[in-house]
Amino acid sequence: MAAYKLTIGDASRLIASGELTPSELLKSLLDRIERLEPSLEAWVTLDIEGARATAEDLTSEIEKGVSRGPLHGIPVGVKDIFYTAGLKTTMGSPIYRDFIPSRDAVSVARFRDAGAVIIGKTETTEFALADPAPTRNPWNLEHTPGGSSSGSAAAVSSGMCPTALGTQTGGSVIRPASFCGIVGMKPTRDLIRRGGVYPLSWSLDHVGFFTRCVDDAAMVLGALTDGDHLDYHPIDRLEPPRLGMLRGYFQENADENVWDGFEAATMSLRDAGARVEEVSLPSTFKLIHAAHRVILASEAASVHEENFKERMTDYRVNLRGLVASGLLVPASEYLRARRLGGRFVEELEAVMRDVDCLIVPSAPTPALRGLESTGDPAFNAPWSLSGYPVMTVPSGITEDELPLGFQIIGKLHGEKHLFGVAKWCEGVFSFENAPREPSEMA
Amino acid sequence: MAAYKLTIGDASRLIASGELTPSELLKSLLDRIERLEPSLEAWVTLDIEGARATAEDLTSEIEKGVSRGPLHGIPVGVKDIFYTAGLKTTMGSPIYRDFIPSRDAVSVARFRDAGAVIIGKTETTEFALADPAPTRNPWNLEHTPGGSSSGSAAAVSSGMCPTALGTQTGGSVIRPASFCGIVGMKPTRDLIRRGGVYPLSWSLDHVGFFTRCVDDAAMVLGALTDGDHLDYHPIDRLEPPRLGMLRGYFQENADENVWDGFEAATMSLRDAGARVEEVSLPSTFKLIHAAHRVILASEAASVHEENFKERMTDYRVNLRGLVASGLLVPASEYLRARRLGGRFVEELEAVMRDVDCLIVPSAPTPALRGLESTGDPAFNAPWSLSGYPVMTVPSGITEDELPLGFQIIGKLHGEKHLFGVAKWCEGVFSFENAPREPSEMA
Repeated sequence: MAAYKLTIGDASRLIASGELTPSELLKSLLDRIERLEPSLEAWVTLDIEGARATAEDLTSEIEKGVSRGPLHGIPVGVKDIFYTAGLKTTMGSPIYRDFIPSRDAVSVARFRDAGAVIIGKTETTEFALADPAPTRNPWNLEHTPGGSSSGSAAAVSSGMCPTALGTQTGGSVIRPASFCGIVGMKPTRDLIRRGGVYPLSWSLDHVGFFTRCVDDAAMVLGALTDGDHLDYHPIDRLEPPRLGMLRGYFQENADENVWDGFEAATMSLRDAGARVEEVSLPSTFKLIHAAHRVILASEAASVHEENFKERMTDYRVNLRGLVASGLLVPASEYLRARRLGGRFVEELEAVMRDVDCLIVPSAPTPALRGLESTGDPAFNAPWSLSGYPVMTVPSGITEDELPLGFQIIGKLHGEKHLFGVAKWCEGVFSFENAPREPSEMA
Repeated sequence: MAAYKLTIGDASRLIASGELTPSELLKSLLDRIERLEPSLEAWVTLDIEGARATAEDLTSEIEKGVSRGPLHGIPVGVKDIFYTAGLKTTMGSPIYRDFIPSRDAVSVARFRDAGAVIIGKTETTEFALADPAPTRNPWNLEHTPGGSSSGSAAAVSSGMCPTALGTQTGGSVIRPASFCGIVGMKPTRDLIRRGGVYPLSWSLDHVGFFTRCVDDAAMVLGALTDGDHLDYHPIDRLEPPRLGMLRGYFQENADENVWDGFEAATMSLRDAGARVEEVSLPSTFKLIHAAHRVILASEAASVHEENFKERMTDYRVNLRGLVASGLLVPASEYLRARRLGGRFVEELEAVMRDVDCLIVPSAPTPALRGLESTGDPAFNAPWSLSGYPVMTVPSGITEDELPLGFQIIGKLHGEKHLFGVAKWCEGVFSFENAPREPSEMA
């Protein structure tokens, strides 16, 4: 198998045993990038020389018998709103076109300490809102990869790197992961520290990441958190889980492809022994999207207020509208939204008391045609507001050969258990599809 | 010595050894209350029957050899914004005149579990803002005891109970403690959980308490927190501390009595071996009172918005003005204030790097004459915004025989160390004064 196709787990074993060096793995990925990047546009900045030098150092370490753990020598992508010391960080905005941070974001520093090789910075929508990046979906170049972590999702999906950092404020990890047929994770809010990540809305922002399987996600989370007290990998074997299925709002707002695929996936879990029961959402849910919007607009306005006054024309239409509307929100409205979020969390705890996880589709549609919209975060925003950990696992493809994602919501700080459930579901779905090779594409 | 004069530490030892029963201690305090309450008006509601029954149960437990720890059989007062199951809780407002909660606040429940005897509910300003309670200062009935925790401070100062719960959003624990010549403490924000306390401004609210010595404070904090990992009592013996003295704003705004007393107290600490160095406040400090006000107004408006629309005339002038102004604050202004608070904390960390604690006077004035104003929280509000733990220790009296408080600011979660510093200072000050007996008063 070509090295670029390896999961982190497999690459890690080969590196540890000396059958593959970090430099060889990097070369395979860089060849892949050279081949695919012109059509996918997943990267803003590549640091090929820096990555090669790091990979050589890590190769020498291994030869001396030193291993930093499962991420030793693993190349990674970093969304372009994470500070990277000495490496341009644009936020997807002309305002930061030439900005070079002097320090690393906390999560980037953790990646480096764990032996990861930073290949470069991946495309993001403008300041991680909704004004699209140029990136295309590896499954079909006419379709969006989703956003805001567009480049990270496309890069992992297409075999340019086995994992990449993203962020989620509405649905910016789970939706692109689902659109690109890979695993996405947004852990409990602040479990991965946000220091050095440009904020969009600090009450809602989460650091998350992409991988191609659940085992890899557990390894990555271990490297990104303090983790003294928790080992996420190997994932505990689990009895068939008890899953709380949500209909109502989700069924009403999902397109036919998505809901049929979700029902089919759920049926396959049932057949494999999972107990799936319908649960009802708390009464606060019907106001949760409005609350999310008010918090997002208010905090984004607070973040951008100064830049906005001086350089309004450097903002694109979505963020410009959000900041302008956010500046008009009264504090009492903002605080009502925050308090509603608190009540939602309390009620959610009660709803989840008798199940392991909640399940809903990862997005209302598969990846949309065209690059004008990165899709709708409505199926993800409630969990960004609640701060609960979420994963998406690919569960099937549509007739048009676009992947579908299965969203699993865990309990606060219940990552260990969420991994168990996600791995169990992944085993049942046995999703083996990958995007077609570019040579096969139209 | 009459039992009502005992510290918690002394009463506790006598109870443990069988020389004093919880019922006897309670009787001494109830006699004291009967004698002083008509002139002090410290209590909204007394639960004499309930307290007697609890004291009897706790007396039986001790006779059977069961002790719940240092608070076993200790009578306490509870500010009337803490929920007390089955006991009226008015918030100092006609809106809640007849409100009887069905559950205890977390801190009240912890007191009960620790064997404390709830005597009753103490007077508070309206909803813990600034519209005064009828309570008078035990040192001089013509003067305010301070607020908002007016009744708790007066009750502990006058020997009606050895400790009482209060809250602080601006300066509502430290200021009345200082005005009444006792020890007051506001630990790190949320170290004592706020569940069941009526909010004034949830980003600023702290649960705190009053005692007559630092040792007692350490015992009380132990009972009110989870404390599995921390034992506050006995307090660690300390080398002479390094203290960071703040001038500037504080010297400019302190009246002559206060600043002279503070300089004298500081000099006595120096003479005893403390290293006192002047430190400068961070640049954000000059905006900190404005930020505090914006947060307080916005959040109070959010808390009271609904009641306010229906019952505006049931609000007194201070809170009415605060809510009305808070409803006009834009979210961007509120969020700017919150973010300023964050920067202040970061800068404060740097300022405190080379000292154990900061020191400033506990209030700009001694207890003011008249009951119209409870005094100015300006010397306390910055630490309520920062969430840092603070104690006040009485350090002297003015020519008019009004006590002066010495405010000590510790580091976040540095309570153990703060107790050490406060006890060291208390030892140097040797403040032995107590309010004159009512018979001696004019």
